[in-house]
Amino acid sequence: MEFEESGIGEECGVFGCVAAGEWPTQLEVAQILTLGLVALQHRGQESAGIVTSTGTNPPTYTTLKGMGLVNTAFKAEDLLKLRNGNLGIGHTRYSTTGISELQNCQPFVVDTLHGKIAVAHNGELVNASALRKKVMRHGVGLSTSSDSELITQLLALTPPMEELDTPDWVARIQNLMTETPTSYSLLVMYKDVIYAVRDPYGNRPLSIGRLVPISKLHSSGAGEADTEGWVVSSESCSFQSIGAKYYREVQPGEIVQISKNGVKSLIVVPRPEGDPPAFCIFEYVYFARPDSIFEGQMVYTVRHRCGRQLAIEAPTDADVVSTVPESATPAALGYAQQSGLPYVEVLCKNRYVGRTFIQPNTRLRQLGVAKKFGALTDNFAGKRVVLIDDSIVRGNTISPIIKLLKEAGATEVHIRVASPPIRFPCYMGINIPTKEELIANKPEFEDIAGYIGATSVRYLSVEGLVSAVQGGIESHGKDERISTKTTRFGHCTACLTGKYPVELEW
Amino acid sequence: MEFEESGIGEECGVFGCVAAGEWPTQLEVAQILTLGLVALQHRGQESAGIVTSTGTNPPTYTTLKGMGLVNTAFKAEDLLKLRNGNLGIGHTRYSTTGISELQNCQPFVVDTLHGKIAVAHNGELVNASALRKKVMRHGVGLSTSSDSELITQLLALTPPMEELDTPDWVARIQNLMTETPTSYSLLVMYKDVIYAVRDPYGNRPLSIGRLVPISKLHSSGAGEADTEGWVVSSESCSFQSIGAKYYREVQPGEIVQISKNGVKSLIVVPRPEGDPPAFCIFEYVYFARPDSIFEGQMVYTVRHRCGRQLAIEAPTDADVVSTVPESATPAALGYAQQSGLPYVEVLCKNRYVGRTFIQPNTRLRQLGVAKKFGALTDNFAGKRVVLIDDSIVRGNTISPIIKLLKEAGATEVHIRVASPPIRFPCYMGINIPTKEELIANKPEFEDIAGYIGATSVRYLSVEGLVSAVQGGIESHGKDERISTKTTRFGHCTACLTGKYPVELEW
Amino acid sequence: MEFEESGIGEECGVFGCVAAGEWPTQLEVAQILTLGLVALQHRGQESAGIVTSTGTNPPTYTTLKGMGLVNTAFKAEDLLKLRNGNLGIGHTRYSTTGISELQNCQPFVVDTLHGKIAVAHNGELVNASALRKKVMRHGVGLSTSSDSELITQLLALTPPMEELDTPDWVARIQNLMTETPTSYSLLVMYKDVIYAVRDPYGNRPLSIGRLVPISKLHSSGAGEADTEGWVVSSESCSFQSIGAKYYREVQPGEIVQISKNGVKSLIVVPRPEGDPPAFCIFEYVYFARPDSIFEGQMVYTVRHRCGRQLAIEAPTDADVVSTVPESATPAALGYAQQSGLPYVEVLCKNRYVGRTFIQPNTRLRQLGVAKKFGALTDNFAGKRVVLIDDSIVRGNTISPIIKLLKEAGATEVHIRVASPPIRFPCYMGINIPTKEELIANKPEFEDIAGYIGATSVRYLSVEGLVSAVQGGIESHGKDERISTKTTRFGHCTACLTGKYPVELEW
Amino acid sequence: MEFEESGIGEECGVFGCVAAGEWPTQLEVAQILTLGLVALQHRGQESAGIVTSTGTNPPTYTTLKGMGLVNTAFKAEDLLKLRNGNLGIGHTRYSTTGISELQNCQPFVVDTLHGKIAVAHNGELVNASALRKKVMRHGVGLSTSSDSELITQLLALTPPMEELDTPDWVARIQNLMTETPTSYSLLVMYKDVIYAVRDPYGNRPLSIGRLVPISKLHSSGAGEADTEGWVVSSESCSFQSIGAKYYREVQPGEIVQISKNGVKSLIVVPRPEGDPPAFCIFEYVYFARPDSIFEGQMVYTVRHRCGRQLAIEAPTDADVVSTVPESATPAALGYAQQSGLPYVEVLCKNRYVGRTFIQPNTRLRQLGVAKKFGALTDNFAGKRVVLIDDSIVRGNTISPIIKLLKEAGATEVHIRVASPPIRFPCYMGINIPTKEELIANKPEFEDIAGYIGATSVRYLSVEGLVSAVQGGIESHGKDERISTKTTRFGHCTACLTGKYPVELEW
Repeated sequence: MEFEESGIGEECGVFGCVAAGEWPTQLEVAQILTLGLVALQHRGQESAGIVTSTGTNPPTYTTLKGMGLVNTAFKAEDLLKLRNGNLGIGHTRYSTTGISELQNCQPFVVDTLHGKIAVAHNGELVNASALRKKVMRHGVGLSTSSDSELITQLLALTPPMEELDTPDWVARIQNLMTETPTSYSLLVMYKDVIYAVRDPYGNRPLSIGRLVPISKLHSSGAGEADTEGWVVSSESCSFQSIGAKYYREVQPGEIVQISKNGVKSLIVVPRPEGDPPAFCIFEYVYFARPDSIFEGQMVYTVRHRCGRQLAIEAPTDADVVSTVPESATPAALGYAQQSGLPYVEVLCKNRYVGRTFIQPNTRLRQLGVAKKFGALTDNFAGKRVVLIDDSIVRGNTISPIIKLLKEAGATEVHIRVASPPIRFPCYMGINIPTKEELIANKPEFEDIAGYIGATSVRYLSVEGLVSAVQGGIESHGKDERISTKTTRFGHCTACLTGKYPVELEW
Repeated sequence: MEFEESGIGEECGVFGCVAAGEWPTQLEVAQILTLGLVALQHRGQESAGIVTSTGTNPPTYTTLKGMGLVNTAFKAEDLLKLRNGNLGIGHTRYSTTGISELQNCQPFVVDTLHGKIAVAHNGELVNASALRKKVMRHGVGLSTSSDSELITQLLALTPPMEELDTPDWVARIQNLMTETPTSYSLLVMYKDVIYAVRDPYGNRPLSIGRLVPISKLHSSGAGEADTEGWVVSSESCSFQSIGAKYYREVQPGEIVQISKNGVKSLIVVPRPEGDPPAFCIFEYVYFARPDSIFEGQMVYTVRHRCGRQLAIEAPTDADVVSTVPESATPAALGYAQQSGLPYVEVLCKNRYVGRTFIQPNTRLRQLGVAKKFGALTDNFAGKRVVLIDDSIVRGNTISPIIKLLKEAGATEVHIRVASPPIRFPCYMGINIPTKEELIANKPEFEDIAGYIGATSVRYLSVEGLVSAVQGGIESHGKDERISTKTTRFGHCTACLTGKYPVELEW
Repeated sequence: MEFEESGIGEECGVFGCVAAGEWPTQLEVAQILTLGLVALQHRGQESAGIVTSTGTNPPTYTTLKGMGLVNTAFKAEDLLKLRNGNLGIGHTRYSTTGISELQNCQPFVVDTLHGKIAVAHNGELVNASALRKKVMRHGVGLSTSSDSELITQLLALTPPMEELDTPDWVARIQNLMTETPTSYSLLVMYKDVIYAVRDPYGNRPLSIGRLVPISKLHSSGAGEADTEGWVVSSESCSFQSIGAKYYREVQPGEIVQISKNGVKSLIVVPRPEGDPPAFCIFEYVYFARPDSIFEGQMVYTVRHRCGRQLAIEAPTDADVVSTVPESATPAALGYAQQSGLPYVEVLCKNRYVGRTFIQPNTRLRQLGVAKKFGALTDNFAGKRVVLIDDSIVRGNTISPIIKLLKEAGATEVHIRVASPPIRFPCYMGINIPTKEELIANKPEFEDIAGYIGATSVRYLSVEGLVSAVQGGIESHGKDERISTKTTRFGHCTACLTGKYPVELEW
Repeated sequence: MEFEESGIGEECGVFGCVAAGEWPTQLEVAQILTLGLVALQHRGQESAGIVTSTGTNPPTYTTLKGMGLVNTAFKAEDLLKLRNGNLGIGHTRYSTTGISELQNCQPFVVDTLHGKIAVAHNGELVNASALRKKVMRHGVGLSTSSDSELITQLLALTPPMEELDTPDWVARIQNLMTETPTSYSLLVMYKDVIYAVRDPYGNRPLSIGRLVPISKLHSSGAGEADTEGWVVSSESCSFQSIGAKYYREVQPGEIVQISKNGVKSLIVVPRPEGDPPAFCIFEYVYFARPDSIFEGQMVYTVRHRCGRQLAIEAPTDADVVSTVPESATPAALGYAQQSGLPYVEVLCKNRYVGRTFIQPNTRLRQLGVAKKFGALTDNFAGKRVVLIDDSIVRGNTISPIIKLLKEAGATEVHIRVASPPIRFPCYMGINIPTKEELIANKPEFEDIAGYIGATSVRYLSVEGLVSAVQGGIESHGKDERISTKTTRFGHCTACLTGKYPVELEW
């Protein structure tokens, strides 16, 4: 099921680009940023922003922000104003509320005694509330509720600017990292440098790519000398669309300096001893685009393994396997492969359905999700269907689909969910429905199959998910301890288990 | 490959709705029309229009038109103005050119001596040019280039209005049908009636549905007494999304009268003796939504059979079968089933890529279609891939995809096209590139595999396509005559064979 | 008082331009048309349209239409598409109602057996209803309610196209003029010619100008050889803003042919014997821009004379004379001059007040027109004010202004209206409130001063208005007969006297 | 001449409103703010903003900002979100440059340890640069270039927040006033209070009004008990349009507290001993709306006196006096009265001329300002014209008007300017062209009449302007010292004399 309907939302995507060589380069940095953000659009559709710097001394910064999708938010004539940028960072933001939302749009730029810095941020500072108080106690007013402004003011604050001839931003970033352990993947732009930062727990993703001539994009012969610039992105899926090759991930706790001279690792801030990394496991399950690579593995492949593992844990006596298009398809194909059942399509999505002007209290309201899907009856009429979904969060969108399939002739509809039930809130940047809204916390969960009208419902186990993410497909006994696994493999499963990577301040 | 890139375009979709019972009914006709058009959006995205009638005597007509997708073209507050409509017709239009395109937007409404009629039309009058002259010779000025205006004026013209007490629209429609044999699926609204008309060759589709209470939509118990109204649509895929059950197709040459009292077949205008019907075979191959039903069969199923037939005709020694998402997927699954090769996904589509502000002459231009697809490398690296496409029209969009797959590690890329090469223009409502642009007519077609960079290329045969559409899967010898088949089964294959259903006037 | 508040509205403005010399000329015809329409914007703000012709054989016509003010309706990039136009006509339209108003937007273009013609029209056909029936009886459907479409179809209709080798548009226009006596100022474009037509009664204005090099615009030395082209416009006020010199008026009943070769009078269709011309006297009183010239006299000067005549007819014992800005100022200055009272400004207009989001039922609603004017208290506190208005139509806008002045310290407020009371509807193109809404037809008119809160109210007499328009300032005895005057001088005063220039068909 | 063409611009207008009585009141505060800003629209058209507070404890602040005119910037549905506001401040801003201008839009709101404050500001801090450095040295990043943000951070900064139980904003405002002497008229909103502040020199205007029932607006009987709330505005012209009575001006250096309980003067911060106040004299000459009241006198009346003084200083042997509409009209009427020459109108303004799509290098470019004005020839042909303008700043807009008048028949055109030549930059909030652009600093000024094509040119003297502002009309000998006058009367004439009210820091 689409997460847009489930109510689960990613906070943001960040993207940066530095042209190699002297100013002005011929590299179309503003356009690369725009296309990079388009490729990260699935991580946030509310607003988009770009800041470019000429990289000169002094630099000129140019900012472009707008509401909505990237292609809506920016106008062609405005992009032209950024064309002198030799480097820049961009941001695409998930929905917020309030009237003047443009104010919360990132990147956030502030002028300091040593010039302007720009910050783009994906994640959520677990101790944001305490940090806001600290900043305000110092006499600073905060004009937005965004963590980016907070981070920017924290960077400007300590140590006091006057004591320094140069700002030493790296020390300031390091200082920030000791004040707040997670979660943030951060791009900080200052003059001609972008600092790419990932929190010590590595909760949010951040990858580096290398721009090469398009003609050499896929050839193995693009050497160092061919480098046209560097990009850094929440997900590697954006690299191909702007002509970059995957280079490496920023490591948990690492500060990487990216400039026209190349990529340089400056420092790796350690976690408290014994703490494992805590990369968000839902990046694999849902958020990331299937062609992105984390920890050396393609997200699609992990989802396919989730499907296979689900087939092992929850086999079904049925005739066909199918998917709720489009995000559950890899898992469905995995389930089909492992189970040996044929994979068929049962639903056809109308991609033009959007906001439609349906007045309340009409018969059309009752149609609900059915407006969005057509039933491919021939493929399942008279058959027992295993329907794979990637997540059931609130339980109110799968129900009409089951009804549709049954009424169109499916004799049985078995729901198999390729992730465990979400039970706990996230404080690291994911927007999850309240505990009360989560189906897994409702009394109805006792008989969820009855509640949603399915013949049967089974979820993937936490252990199974972790195995699939690890690369293994295995059978899990009930006595195995998940905690040792998360320690070993370093993924945050807090929303599934309630075990948070750091102690939460309330 | 998406036809939007191939340059092939459907002309239009039409949709009508009549509420049962007396005026004003509680049925939200304007909203049903809107949702119906949204479900036909794949048939035309340039503009949309709706005309409703109160169905009273005299009736009040209200018109709403706009450029772009249905959800963009209409505003909620404007829809409210149509709320008294007891019946109405709507239209969604494929791209045209020119400055004031809104003028060409349908439905077309004219005031006559006997009151207003509204016309919506899908198709193209083969003898439009002669008919325009006839109308103009009579002293009528035509304000647009649309066939709808032409049809409307023809209906008003003969016999002269003054000679009649009542207009007898049915006789006028019948008269029109003798003047122009094809192609048109037509909705003509007058006062409280919609006439649903399909040309004698049945070139364009038209289906009727019955509105029932949503709660009874899928149950078998919705009897006559439950009828809330009637809808008529280019494709049956729109029925589910507005709460209607499939009723039947309008037959070639038939005039069906739809009113609050029900559906009534008035007449069937015959074809010249010996002429078979000529339903456009490309509705099956490409235009229609997979969940639509024509001639009693689901489009998805026909496409799946095309894939199976293709596997018989053009088997491949390969490791995996895949699709160019999304339209070729049914054929790919059919090919996989028939061939026994595993089906995998190799491309991940970025659904947010749209108009992006790329300036000419930049390195980004070279990326081309690659911006739109991500490679799911794990699924095919080191493997021989059979890639199914539904059509290769101009040959310039499949090429970069093959390049992408090869560079990402595919050892071989065999292209299998689930339809025959297009070689001839269409004069019945499909917008096909010029003969010179069609790859099948270029010298490069001799070595098309080399031209597009594929390991091999094979098209489905015309005989194979016709078999698949018939419902059979068979092996075709070279001596079989396609002509007998099209005669028997009544499909127009003119764009593939050059044999047009009627003699063309030049 | 602004007519926009009084509810009186002009129907339209028309404008045409032909470049001298061969195609393509360097003259920017589309831009001249745009600027010309901007200068006629006071005649209609609802929509605007332009059609240009290349003037070649065959010609290419390009149409541009949009809702709202000219500067809003047209986009710069669209204007570029008209840049090849060697000639063209344009139209600016007063408000209509209904959903798809763009359809009614002029010019109207239709394709005929002999090619396309375009028509722009100011006025209203008195026998439109009968003419519509005639056209429809012939079997023609009319797609709009506009007179322009009607005129266009009438031109195409008779004599039948087939009987002619060439269309002979002049004969057709002449034929039209015999079928409908008034009111129309018409521009008909065909290929490389514009026919400028004024109805036999000359009810609506139409003037011709000559384009000269800007550098010679005001010099007397711009001879024939300097002619760059010709323009034709509802009002001469538009000439200066596009670099044209006033040439002459089109005469009542005249058809003038304007082409690249110059201006040629073709024919003058006579009125029924004894009928005087009937130029709309309200063009002088209100509609026209003060710098326009009709019948050899400047509109400003006529209004000034109206003020002087009003001072003679309705002298006042007061301290200062003032105006309701801005349209009544010439009359106020005339009144001041004639009466010897000092002219002062008492109201300051806030030009930014427009649609403001005031919710119903709030205290702000009660402010009414006061939001629009500030009181210049120093100029009238403690004084007796004569306030000149150009018209009092419904009586509900002058009232709050009087209240404002009194409360701000005026001891007396005498209203003097520089035109007679409107009592009758107009059927020649002016949108006048219903008879019931006109203050002059209400019982309250008996004590209008009491009704609107003024110390006294006096209107200019019909005789006085006619004198002022004639050029004379005189005292009128009660026994003088207005009918003889309108006969002699040829102005339509139907809305004041109920005497219409032609017999009305009901 | 319109200042919009002269290049002189006001920085801003501020407006605040507090409803009397308890929350929620029935007063439509958001709408009053909107209308108040519309009435101040002449002070800034680039962007508009409103912040309302519920006035509860804790309060809820709601912000609304947009680009363009007030009626464009705000949408009706957004205003509804502010409907719970019991008090609020608003701002309308003059043009700035740059891409993301919305960021600079005021009011500026920041969250502090003691809650949110909102600041709206008209003026320019003379020592802004030093103050920015001070703030940044403290470790604060500034996200905009606006003085409002700077003021807001300065208020938050000193004394440090942590040392206080309550913020004591008044002490903080007082502290700010000692740090920066001018220029600012400031509205600071905190919870349920608005602090209205005027700098010690009183450089920018600020007036207080009292909201009363509309029915009692103009009666003298609206007593204390009728008070519905309080408003504070850059100009009193906004009071009438929202139903408020003029109360008094905020005095130079005064902090006035406005709450639901009424208006209270808290403190008056003194100027350095011997320094006179320095109210901007150009508020009288140009910026303010004529119906506003400063220092007890109506702006219109001052302009009228300027015209009379000009007639004394620069009498002309001519036939008629006229104005460049609309802003110079009061001075022209004053000149006419004093000189005894008749006042006539010579130019008619086309109010629809706006941005029009004129391509470069066309003949139409040469038309220049003539597009905007029509010549009322009858009023001046064959006559010697005295044309009053309020200011000639760059000298390039009056020139084509003189040309137009001469070519239309004026025998002489004498330019009389109702203010002295501008020679020096302003550092107190007025946007003046660079010294090099000012005609008074160019060599051409030597023979300005020749340069602009006038028969003669005379400016009002500085002494004469000061006299007119004082209320006197007199003859000035050359030996009189302007410095004593400005001391006595307290107006800033720096742009005319180069004598700034405070020492400038460079």
